[in-house]
Amino acid sequence: MPKINQHFHNLRASHLFAEIRRRTRVFSDAHPDARLIDLGVGDVTRPLPPAVVHAIHDAADEMARAETFRGYGPYVGYEFLRAEIASHDFATRGVPIAVDEVFVSDGGKSDSANLQEIFAGDCVVALMDPVYPVYADSNVIAGRSGPADESGRYAGMVYLACTAENGFQPALPDRHVDLIYLCYPNNPTGAVVTREALQRWVDYARAEEATILFDAAYEGYIRDEGVPHSIYEIDGAREVAIECRSFSKNAGFTGMRLAYTVVPKDARGRASDGTATSLNSLWARRTAIKSNGPPYVIQKAAAAVYTPDGQKEVRALIDFYMGNASIIADGLARSGLTVYGGRNAPYIWIRTPAGLSSWDFFDRLLAEAHVVGAPGSGFGPSGEGYFRLTAFGSRAQTEEAVERIRTRL
Amino acid sequence: MPKINQHFHNLRASHLFAEIRRRTRVFSDAHPDARLIDLGVGDVTRPLPPAVVHAIHDAADEMARAETFRGYGPYVGYEFLRAEIASHDFATRGVPIAVDEVFVSDGGKSDSANLQEIFAGDCVVALMDPVYPVYADSNVIAGRSGPADESGRYAGMVYLACTAENGFQPALPDRHVDLIYLCYPNNPTGAVVTREALQRWVDYARAEEATILFDAAYEGYIRDEGVPHSIYEIDGAREVAIECRSFSKNAGFTGMRLAYTVVPKDARGRASDGTATSLNSLWARRTAIKSNGPPYVIQKAAAAVYTPDGQKEVRALIDFYMGNASIIADGLARSGLTVYGGRNAPYIWIRTPAGLSSWDFFDRLLAEAHVVGAPGSGFGPSGEGYFRLTAFGSRAQTEEAVERIRTRL
Repeated sequence: MPKINQHFHNLRASHLFAEIRRRTRVFSDAHPDARLIDLGVGDVTRPLPPAVVHAIHDAADEMARAETFRGYGPYVGYEFLRAEIASHDFATRGVPIAVDEVFVSDGGKSDSANLQEIFAGDCVVALMDPVYPVYADSNVIAGRSGPADESGRYAGMVYLACTAENGFQPALPDRHVDLIYLCYPNNPTGAVVTREALQRWVDYARAEEATILFDAAYEGYIRDEGVPHSIYEIDGAREVAIECRSFSKNAGFTGMRLAYTVVPKDARGRASDGTATSLNSLWARRTAIKSNGPPYVIQKAAAAVYTPDGQKEVRALIDFYMGNASIIADGLARSGLTVYGGRNAPYIWIRTPAGLSSWDFFDRLLAEAHVVGAPGSGFGPSGEGYFRLTAFGSRAQTEEAVERIRTRL
Repeated sequence: MPKINQHFHNLRASHLFAEIRRRTRVFSDAHPDARLIDLGVGDVTRPLPPAVVHAIHDAADEMARAETFRGYGPYVGYEFLRAEIASHDFATRGVPIAVDEVFVSDGGKSDSANLQEIFAGDCVVALMDPVYPVYADSNVIAGRSGPADESGRYAGMVYLACTAENGFQPALPDRHVDLIYLCYPNNPTGAVVTREALQRWVDYARAEEATILFDAAYEGYIRDEGVPHSIYEIDGAREVAIECRSFSKNAGFTGMRLAYTVVPKDARGRASDGTATSLNSLWARRTAIKSNGPPYVIQKAAAAVYTPDGQKEVRALIDFYMGNASIIADGLARSGLTVYGGRNAPYIWIRTPAGLSSWDFFDRLLAEAHVVGAPGSGFGPSGEGYFRLTAFGSRAQTEEAVERIRTRL
């Protein structure tokens, strides 16, 4: 038998959402009459915007005729979509991004998992804690972590604790790091970053010769004026930052799979002989080797998001979910819980009451309110004592979940 | 600047198809009136089968209503599709494959590039030569190759030469190897493998404790009775083989992006402490970390391939392309060229005449016949002196290309 990639054995045994599903199933089997409400997984529930649906139909008809059929597309995505992205998502905010700095992909998950491949195996990785588990897991199997301790902390990684005590804004690392994963608006805490704080990260990365992997999947949820939407609004960021965006949470594309990553041509890494190498070229090379780009039909659907109708419909989707966020945040606060987030992000981050652990609160919420959430400790050791609810449910289910939590807990 | 993945520097400078595009563009610019016919890239040209188009429309309508909207799907693909695959592609040929041995993905390219990730970094890789460049390139950037010599041969890889002299059937490796990439029907040579020859590979893998990565992307093109369609038709293969299939070349999905990989539960790798580890579990874990599965719309489209209408329409597509293959193979043979393939595969593999190098023949074909092909040396050192044409053009273009080659060369 060939030797396996031994780093897989460093992964913690159970995946957060798999464990949520397991406990939920055990409860359902024992209480078949309980009507569960799931505010755990961060998955959208509203249908696709009509402009997007129309675009899928049109693209299907194109694929049905030899004259308009499309086979292999560009590895990095079609220019019609990359150009819309560059102009709508960046130029309108005064951020110049060239079309060939935009790489279209099949998801923010794969992008954030794959970007580490262009860096050396011994790069030191810093992560916000708690955070989306994919950043850590992809670096674990690439060999950058070492084993995990009992709290789930990997010996080789640097954890940037985000807790209520620091306003969910981590301090700069106290040692040199090479890759820094930042996620704003944050999943799971719902926190956003100020321009000044983000400038400190960019300055740090420039001083330490580090690269920031900036996940802005929830950018569409920013409501407060002055909050940066892109890291490239910050001076110097083009040299040290890669930014990931997604259509999943604004346009309801979780089942459609479309995202993109910006790798500026000013971003550089160092080869072993010391010469500077373009990260844009490396990522283009990696993409050419491993991908043929997302489906044409899906790229046409994404382009429809940038039409006037598409923009209006996406805005309505986000407003709807943010209405849910207010209902959850206000309702739980009135019932005496301490809540964070839900203002510029579709996540509400709750302090578990009475010193309950995250999983104990999960079990209690499930047993007493029949509501499924996500235990904070599943997002990292500093998430212990917190709990995440999502604003992606239906209005009726969201209202009922809040009512049940208020009356039954 | 953070250190980059140094292995990228081992990649040969130019990508085959990029260089083909470059030379073609130079010629077009100098001869703007030349009507070029492209039989180079192996990309389909016929529109999607009607059953598939209908399925896209239906799925779009499902995504338009809250009651039938689909968000995140299973990481490994929807069961409705995996079950069709297991029953139609395997059970009908007497091969028992369980649904949870089928992993649906966004392409044969990504599967064949990503599978190496579950194996150790120091595994020794053996490749058919010539072969689809992705197998080598993905292992190069994973650090398993060392630098390339002038012929493009990587020091750390084992090349399994496939030439007219051995009937394009490589000999077993003369040293121990851990991973063996086999592709049948073969791209680029068009060769198929007999049951007896494939049994020798399986027996070798069992004896050497190696794993075979069997790429059967062109399985739909097999016409000769007795040629194995799946490596699992061979005794013992479930323990040592992973098989990749694709919807690209049978159902015209090159722009739709859907494929699958079979990882049997009997397949094992060895952990560093010597214990056996399930490759199926490792691949499931890797998939859960890095993917959310292909789009729902595309998976529904793929499932339509297995309906009675879909099967009939796919068969017609393959027959059409194989009609082209006969026209090319017969026409070029009559004009005095030595041709291989084109009988159980959509590729015609041509001996370059008069000792011309592959690239010299490319330039001559382009200049004299205005036909674009693919130089054999781009697929590996043993492809030197050969040339690939594809059967994926339109009928009119295929006929005209053959006529031009016959009359102008």
